[in-house]
Amino acid sequence: MAERDSNPDARLVIVSNRGPVTFSRSDSGEREHSRGAGGLVTALNALSRERSEAVWIASAQSDEDASVAEETSETGEPQEVEGLRILLVEHETEAYELMYNHLANPLLWLVQHGLYDLPYSPELGDETRRAWEEGYLPVNENFARAVARLLENSPEGGEPIVLVHDYQLYMVPHFLRERLGRDAFVSLFVHIPWPEPEGWRVLPGYIREGILESLLEANVVAFHTKGYVRSFIRTVRETLGVEVDEEEGVIAYEGREVWVRPYPISIDPNEFEELAGSEEVLEQEETVKNLPGRLLLRVDRMDLSKNIVRGFHAYDRMLEQHPEMKGEVTFLARLQPSRGDIPEYARYAEAIKETVQGVNQKHAKESWEPIVLSMEDDFMLSVAAYKNYDVLLVNAVRDGMNLIAKEAVVANGKNGVLILSENAGAHEELGENALTVNPFDIDEQAKALYEALTMPDDERARRFEALRRTIQANTIEEWAEAQLEDIAAYRERYGKGR
Amino acid sequence: MAERDSNPDARLVIVSNRGPVTFSRSDSGEREHSRGAGGLVTALNALSRERSEAVWIASAQSDEDASVAEETSETGEPQEVEGLRILLVEHETEAYELMYNHLANPLLWLVQHGLYDLPYSPELGDETRRAWEEGYLPVNENFARAVARLLENSPEGGEPIVLVHDYQLYMVPHFLRERLGRDAFVSLFVHIPWPEPEGWRVLPGYIREGILESLLEANVVAFHTKGYVRSFIRTVRETLGVEVDEEEGVIAYEGREVWVRPYPISIDPNEFEELAGSEEVLEQEETVKNLPGRLLLRVDRMDLSKNIVRGFHAYDRMLEQHPEMKGEVTFLARLQPSRGDIPEYARYAEAIKETVQGVNQKHAKESWEPIVLSMEDDFMLSVAAYKNYDVLLVNAVRDGMNLIAKEAVVANGKNGVLILSENAGAHEELGENALTVNPFDIDEQAKALYEALTMPDDERARRFEALRRTIQANTIEEWAEAQLEDIAAYRERYGKGR
Repeated sequence: MAERDSNPDARLVIVSNRGPVTFSRSDSGEREHSRGAGGLVTALNALSRERSEAVWIASAQSDEDASVAEETSETGEPQEVEGLRILLVEHETEAYELMYNHLANPLLWLVQHGLYDLPYSPELGDETRRAWEEGYLPVNENFARAVARLLENSPEGGEPIVLVHDYQLYMVPHFLRERLGRDAFVSLFVHIPWPEPEGWRVLPGYIREGILESLLEANVVAFHTKGYVRSFIRTVRETLGVEVDEEEGVIAYEGREVWVRPYPISIDPNEFEELAGSEEVLEQEETVKNLPGRLLLRVDRMDLSKNIVRGFHAYDRMLEQHPEMKGEVTFLARLQPSRGDIPEYARYAEAIKETVQGVNQKHAKESWEPIVLSMEDDFMLSVAAYKNYDVLLVNAVRDGMNLIAKEAVVANGKNGVLILSENAGAHEELGENALTVNPFDIDEQAKALYEALTMPDDERARRFEALRRTIQANTIEEWAEAQLEDIAAYRERYGKGR
Repeated sequence: MAERDSNPDARLVIVSNRGPVTFSRSDSGEREHSRGAGGLVTALNALSRERSEAVWIASAQSDEDASVAEETSETGEPQEVEGLRILLVEHETEAYELMYNHLANPLLWLVQHGLYDLPYSPELGDETRRAWEEGYLPVNENFARAVARLLENSPEGGEPIVLVHDYQLYMVPHFLRERLGRDAFVSLFVHIPWPEPEGWRVLPGYIREGILESLLEANVVAFHTKGYVRSFIRTVRETLGVEVDEEEGVIAYEGREVWVRPYPISIDPNEFEELAGSEEVLEQEETVKNLPGRLLLRVDRMDLSKNIVRGFHAYDRMLEQHPEMKGEVTFLARLQPSRGDIPEYARYAEAIKETVQGVNQKHAKESWEPIVLSMEDDFMLSVAAYKNYDVLLVNAVRDGMNLIAKEAVVANGKNGVLILSENAGAHEELGENALTVNPFDIDEQAKALYEALTMPDDERARRFEALRRTIQANTIEEWAEAQLEDIAAYRERYGKGR
């Protein structure tokens, strides 16, 4: 892109809580590292690869990460690993705990997904303020300090571009401006849903206003869908009384203009096509292929937002209404335990297990097990399941995007049918060729399951090809490109002194 | 008003599920009636009194109501009672049960107040559809039929004006237009919160679209606050893709214009001033005045939206932080049992009782009982408490308006302090002179309780007078006037053929 090339020497910094690798020591005492999993890491890898000079700043997670953090903090030089340049930030244990397990999860996560049982919870108060002041703020300030130091150490090159990611780091733009002034370009990408203003009213004023004012210190605030963009703009208008241009996605704030933009995140299709042909996946496929009948699949973290219990209830209802389907389908639920320390999550995991047991006892027939609950942490097994599903169920109560819907379609070799919640971010792109469900309607989901399991081959093929084309047309590279183009356009328009 | 007088002979019909009186038989076999309680009935009385020819149509509730319904259905003549002209509509028991206890409460009520625990409930499906098709729709059609028959029976007079009320009757405009065409003026007043579009997505498409399309058959859709007006306009735009003018509150729909307007409901201050001096209230005051220390009061139905449990937790926290307040305050909780057949409500009532017990056991001292739970159905006792509170707690999670805040201020003789949730509709009018609280923040509520209980006399007096002036400036008469003026303006503007 012409605009992009006009700033070839810009210094690009990516900031996210989780980094692309975790360091450890081998038994023989050598430093090793393992790649992080998860869609965000893949996506940021793509961004990072677009710019070889990029530095990626993340929290130290392991003890060895902490050593790396100390070494790099002395030299100021990023650690080079697998073509990435990484700087790790160490936080005080208690501050990180307060940020991560009290403020970001569960509070911001549950508020942004609308998952609280509001007559009873949350009960906020001074503990919330402490998690904010002694956890969230210092951790965010640590990141800003690390960015500023990095940029001080490499003063040559163009104007800095700092891309901050997700709900753990909302206050980084605020702390960055204190240090860098207005010369740096700063964006913040929110990867989870942005609720409407009413949803934000659950939070104390100092948190919701603090977050919004910090985000307006960025030049671009980015989301996965047009819907979240709209909700953000309204939240700013109603909470801060700031002038906004909803059509253009521009917020005028303190003499500057903040762009609010949707960039639907995607995946690297090549990665999944390669994985699908890999030795490990071929091995795992035997397990999957041995399951009787058609393969109904879900792959999720055991998160309150994923709607796992209702999914089983819908399957139960489908089997009640179509007993002829018994033995003709197996529901493989690949569920990854998550956030078990949070009481709401522990209770949800219990509810899931009880529901599986109940449905299996009710419908089991000879050797046939209606639901196979698979909780191994084995990504290759998930990919093997992606390859072989006949029907994929994604019925989330609410979901920022849901990359599993995209990964699974790309890897699938069976013209699999996608059942997709209208409240998943992915629905804006994939809804047209999926079977859309209201996540709260059990009978609608039961009908969608039956329809998907009995869909004629030609319709399966038509829908599947359309889904695949949609995903191929917006891969992770286009996602990264679109952001870099907008950055160039923004800088072109407003120049350096924003 | 000139415009109003230009249609002096308009035929005014008020439609609400609950009517102003309930009929019964005395022991000697005579027909008797008792006045209904509740803010809506008072308000509609005011509307009705503005127009002596008005007829009020409501559901038959008692057996004797059903007899009245049959008699009036034969003659077509409304029953005259206390200067009101009443027509009662009888429904099939099952249809009414489905409408009332399945569709309107809990579903619409909980969705519109945002009270579901979304990871688990609601579980919608075919039962929901049945409650809609066999309950809500037929009951609403019964009302439309009764209105049409009434108007047929009195063809002389001007163009009809039909004022439909609240969430039990959303489909009445739809069925009315089928019968009356576009010559009648129809408004629908929503007395509970209108959530943002996201909140509505919990409902199945056929319900949310059915409701919205019916409401757009009205000429005016009315709410208590500007916030609900805004949310309604957005819900229409996002759900139906209809063109809206958010600034002007006008929705263009099928060649017509629908006005969306806020009319904050109020009370009749004279009624409460008279009550406050009545013999019955003076008697009840003895009980209230005997409670030790300052009087902290709440008066609520035991509804999930009222935030009763968190209110007790905040009081508990205040007593922990200020043990010197023990014995210096009594928390009188006047709580009216409500909707006990609905499991969520039964569970909430249990939680309330357990919490009261816990707080009382923890803090009780000599003869002092920290919380006095009073569940008698005795309005005079409530008014006696209104007169004598030092602090009134209204901390609702969400509340359409909350008329108790207005009633209590008007009756109070102690310069009482109002603690008011920012999520109560009344906050738009009263927030400035109340102590505002976030309903989810226990410590903030605990601080507000302490601040209110220890507030200097001059500040109490200043705030109290300002609250009283605000309420006196917008009484129930202004509320009724404002609507009738807008009706005249609407008819002036668009003429008869809308």
